Amino acid sequence: MKSPIAVVVLAAGAGTRMKSALPKVLHPLAGWPMVRHVLENAARLEPARIVGVVAPGANQVAAAFAPHPTVVQRKPRGTADAAKAALPALQGHRGPVLVVFADAPLITTASLQRLVEACRKAKAAVGVLGFTARDPTPYGRLIVHDGMLERIVESKDTDESERAVDFCNSGVMCIDGALIGSLLGAIGNKNVKNEFYLTDAVAAARAAGHVAIAVAGEEAEFQGINSRAELAVAEKALQQRLRSAAFEMGVSMADPDTVWLAADTKFAADVTIGPNVRFGTGVSVASGTEIKAFCDIEGARIGRDVIIGPFARIRPGSDVADQVHIGNFVELKATRMGRGAKANHLAYLGDSDIGAASNIGAGTIAVNYDGYGKWRTVIGAEAFVGSNSSLVAPIRIGRGANVTAGSVVTEDVPAGAVAFGRARQQTKKGRAAALRAKLKSRAAEAKRTGKK
Amino acid sequence: MKSPIAVVVLAAGAGTRMKSALPKVLHPLAGWPMVRHVLENAARLEPARIVGVVAPGANQVAAAFAPHPTVVQRKPRGTADAAKAALPALQGHRGPVLVVFADAPLITTASLQRLVEACRKAKAAVGVLGFTARDPTPYGRLIVHDGMLERIVESKDTDESERAVDFCNSGVMCIDGALIGSLLGAIGNKNVKNEFYLTDAVAAARAAGHVAIAVAGEEAEFQGINSRAELAVAEKALQQRLRSAAFEMGVSMADPDTVWLAADTKFAADVTIGPNVRFGTGVSVASGTEIKAFCDIEGARIGRDVIIGPFARIRPGSDVADQVHIGNFVELKATRMGRGAKANHLAYLGDSDIGAASNIGAGTIAVNYDGYGKWRTVIGAEAFVGSNSSLVAPIRIGRGANVTAGSVVTEDVPAGAVAFGRARQQTKKGRAAALRAKLKSRAAEAKRTGKK
Amino acid sequence: MKSPIAVVVLAAGAGTRMKSALPKVLHPLAGWPMVRHVLENAARLEPARIVGVVAPGANQVAAAFAPHPTVVQRKPRGTADAAKAALPALQGHRGPVLVVFADAPLITTASLQRLVEACRKAKAAVGVLGFTARDPTPYGRLIVHDGMLERIVESKDTDESERAVDFCNSGVMCIDGALIGSLLGAIGNKNVKNEFYLTDAVAAARAAGHVAIAVAGEEAEFQGINSRAELAVAEKALQQRLRSAAFEMGVSMADPDTVWLAADTKFAADVTIGPNVRFGTGVSVASGTEIKAFCDIEGARIGRDVIIGPFARIRPGSDVADQVHIGNFVELKATRMGRGAKANHLAYLGDSDIGAASNIGAGTIAVNYDGYGKWRTVIGAEAFVGSNSSLVAPIRIGRGANVTAGSVVTEDVPAGAVAFGRARQQTKKGRAAALRAKLKSRAAEAKRTGKK
Repeated sequence: MKSPIAVVVLAAGAGTRMKSALPKVLHPLAGWPMVRHVLENAARLEPARIVGVVAPGANQVAAAFAPHPTVVQRKPRGTADAAKAALPALQGHRGPVLVVFADAPLITTASLQRLVEACRKAKAAVGVLGFTARDPTPYGRLIVHDGMLERIVESKDTDESERAVDFCNSGVMCIDGALIGSLLGAIGNKNVKNEFYLTDAVAAARAAGHVAIAVAGEEAEFQGINSRAELAVAEKALQQRLRSAAFEMGVSMADPDTVWLAADTKFAADVTIGPNVRFGTGVSVASGTEIKAFCDIEGARIGRDVIIGPFARIRPGSDVADQVHIGNFVELKATRMGRGAKANHLAYLGDSDIGAASNIGAGTIAVNYDGYGKWRTVIGAEAFVGSNSSLVAPIRIGRGANVTAGSVVTEDVPAGAVAFGRARQQTKKGRAAALRAKLKSRAAEAKRTGKK
Repeated sequence: MKSPIAVVVLAAGAGTRMKSALPKVLHPLAGWPMVRHVLENAARLEPARIVGVVAPGANQVAAAFAPHPTVVQRKPRGTADAAKAALPALQGHRGPVLVVFADAPLITTASLQRLVEACRKAKAAVGVLGFTARDPTPYGRLIVHDGMLERIVESKDTDESERAVDFCNSGVMCIDGALIGSLLGAIGNKNVKNEFYLTDAVAAARAAGHVAIAVAGEEAEFQGINSRAELAVAEKALQQRLRSAAFEMGVSMADPDTVWLAADTKFAADVTIGPNVRFGTGVSVASGTEIKAFCDIEGARIGRDVIIGPFARIRPGSDVADQVHIGNFVELKATRMGRGAKANHLAYLGDSDIGAASNIGAGTIAVNYDGYGKWRTVIGAEAFVGSNSSLVAPIRIGRGANVTAGSVVTEDVPAGAVAFGRARQQTKKGRAAALRAKLKSRAAEAKRTGKK
Repeated sequence: MKSPIAVVVLAAGAGTRMKSALPKVLHPLAGWPMVRHVLENAARLEPARIVGVVAPGANQVAAAFAPHPTVVQRKPRGTADAAKAALPALQGHRGPVLVVFADAPLITTASLQRLVEACRKAKAAVGVLGFTARDPTPYGRLIVHDGMLERIVESKDTDESERAVDFCNSGVMCIDGALIGSLLGAIGNKNVKNEFYLTDAVAAARAAGHVAIAVAGEEAEFQGINSRAELAVAEKALQQRLRSAAFEMGVSMADPDTVWLAADTKFAADVTIGPNVRFGTGVSVASGTEIKAFCDIEGARIGRDVIIGPFARIRPGSDVADQVHIGNFVELKATRMGRGAKANHLAYLGDSDIGAASNIGAGTIAVNYDGYGKWRTVIGAEAFVGSNSSLVAPIRIGRGANVTAGSVVTEDVPAGAVAFGRARQQTKKGRAAALRAKLKSRAAEAKRTGKK
């Protein structure tokens, strides 16, 4: 049986270049905080432990690690120092220890897996993930001979032959858990910044007669994020991965570059998505459903053969059954739409439960808020709610009931009843001319006096 | 006089990689089913006949060919077998026969024309459209000597010198109608899959002492579509063509990458389109009109000097006269707007006829549906419909009539009349505090009991 | 002290390839007329004068130069002739004269500054901005020896060695103000078109024994605009500059390619912008504010910690205080929202003043227009306006007042009052079946008779 893996996630960096009150590793990517991508990818290795290393007072960051524990790096004294802070939390762990970075969320589980396997096979004390850089200039180089990683040379320390090397250090390491304490302990800080660098673990391992290796990944997955511009680049890369996966599922996207997915968006086959659709987290979409252009959907289950949009917004807590139609300028919030129900035009349905095959007219508002409480609107099956109605919640409209257009409904409507809540029309023949003359003179007067 | 052309469109492929209930060649591109692009491009050659070859039971596909006839390929036994199925439908045809693919919709009429002309000039029995591939690895190579196509070598059968050839087979062929029967008849199926390959027509022609030639087109136009991802790539290519044509017409698009056109969208000069505008099929836009950001327009004629959007949706059957204004969160469906009419804010106008220079207030709903029938709203010229009105169709509002804000209109309003359909306001001084206290305690009680 | 700079902006070109009634240099880029970019970039040099050269009758163009004067080039006789037209307006000016083009708006102040400084240092009579072209074929070449610009060779006149030169002429020049009259006077028109070319100023200066130099800029910034397609390319380049600057400010954009900025959009740090947000001119956004997907904002001040969208539109003259929430399908026009006020769903607020912490219900319409005048709606602090209300302006709703849902409010509501403007509900038990039977038979009848 293989020894268990531990993962140390370094998350103590300052992130000042983000110019943000929000800690860098909590900035969102595909709907998740950045660090969560690292945690989810690590979790697929089924490690025995995941430990976060955070800065003092970084409570929000620590909370993002839950249920995984975090330790505090007291002072920013380098990556080896940060890893050292995790040692107490690794007490008793003998298997491989992966050290990854919370601000490099594009790393794949496959690369981590490959690194661990290679270390196990080579019985390496230290393994490093490297990549072939298009432009290696800014990176430390991995000097490999006969399959062994001889050393890591910082960019500024390279000689001419080393500068020609384009195999670069990603920073991600796998260290033998039985040796990690002694290796980190052997790292010094005699350098310009007086910091302890994790890269020196390679030299420490070699000095102690251990094996070090390097394993190659793709440059793109090691992109660290230090600025808002780099955050946007990473978002684009993640979106491309998610869109490719959606295509593979059998999703059609007329313009995939304008469909924004969340890390957890779930699609069945034969879903069609128009241009300009944004998915927040927590959305699943069943087969045969079409989401037209200009929609924003979050936290909702969408059934089969549903038609949504264009210009629809579905907010968290919504549940849309099969064959529902939701049209333009319609907002759903925490609302259930029963099978075949329709709300096709300009409506707000909040905290509502709409029965199967009911029809909600254009301009209908579920008046769910009175300034203090949020109240539910419950509509039975096969009800017909006329256009421009106001349903003052809490309210129940029974099965097959009919609310006439323009009604304000303040009392429950029993099943099969017709509710009126509107004034009777009065028509004053020939009076428009006089009304207009009055309005016109009022406008002229206002213009004259500059008063409105 | 030139001999007439026939076109055989192969559309019997399975398309399983699309993972779709909809047949592959019916998936939409720029608003048309994929195969329609092939048919329209072929039709510009003014062929004497177009014949589709479809799979058994593919009624939807056959329908997409109408008025062109289709024949059925009984079993999927290769492209030559498919072409053979079309022979009865080519009875008596002596001119060139183009064989094209329903799932390669980017092919241009110009390339087909060039192939036919070259075949005529060279008196070729078989002509093949080829392209210089950036990466020829996956393609069959066209081996040309002294202007003659000697043979087509499948990628897996290439020797070293043939592998260096980057002139590749698109699959599109032109075959002499007088010879097509004998050439197809000479093709065997002694290969791994026991299929009959159309590419073997070249060898068959050469063996019978006929001339074969190859004509070059652009790699991009021969892109076949086998997956949803490839569908999206083709869509992007088509959109770029359509956008370039629009620029040439004198259309301004601030961000052309976010304007989605249909294959049949028609523009006059001096049209301005903001970012994020989607055109469905059947739209024409006249000169001087501005369509602002975030609009969705389909099946509508748009006049001159019109202002639309942002956030407007115009649905099929709409006709928008000159100088009309349609503003944000407004939906038109099967609605005519007369010259200079305005609907600037949050409105639904369905099955309506709005007279010239009329003003439709914010929040107005044409109540066109009662659960059973759709009814028309007819508004005369220079009418004024106050905000938040509900016009319960069928209804007529006369010329110059005035509907006061918030009215429910259930009876026709004569020309020049003023209609009220709203309650008189009652104001209870000092009562807000008591009302709020009541609402607040209700909310507190609900919170306490967990009941809403 | 340095001698003052003058800038001559050539704007007399015809621009026929735009196919537009609007003069080419007035076509918008990032919300500004094209020429304004040139003027603003020139203005950063703090020149003593800016002079525009326009075609006869180009009043709109001349107006775009205000407060800078313009002169008229009588006939289109070349760039030197155009520059000559500016000479009277340069009377008495002795310092450097920059000659730039109104249809090349991407040129940077830094390049202009570098050109002027280099001319001063070299005591050059003429300085030319050049660029290294990816494909020099279409451009005139700058022939430089020992740091001196020897001559400019038109593309068609190049010999083999000159064709190999990739340092090309941008057209932008700096001419010594003391010499400009004599240099322009020395330029002839013995060429195919009989035009006077400004590039000949180099030869004129050399012939008179003066120094000419060339200074390098980036190819991208010299892109001239002659067609709608080139306009779109320039727009994209400008947008990239503006987005980069926004990132540097500490703005997050999930998909920057779908955020359209105006040249004057102002951001504080820690602003978050979703995909698909368009900014018109005149917008400032304070710190901590989030603008969700699908918004359109123009001419508005947005405060701190505000939440806007998705699908919100804010029009000119609006002022949104701190902590305001503006939700989906809400339009603001010339409206002030006080601190913490909310309008979260489907509303039109025009010409309104909403007090702090007030809540505007879904579907509320400020009825600001009566067909003749626009009137104001003034709502006090902590008021509650129920859903689907119509506020018929001019109207005042007092502090802490409560408007019940579905009300039409036509009279002022005092502070602390409750206003009702809706009918009492009437419920007819068991009557839906009969109503439906009637509607159903009406629909059947209409279908039968084909009449609606």
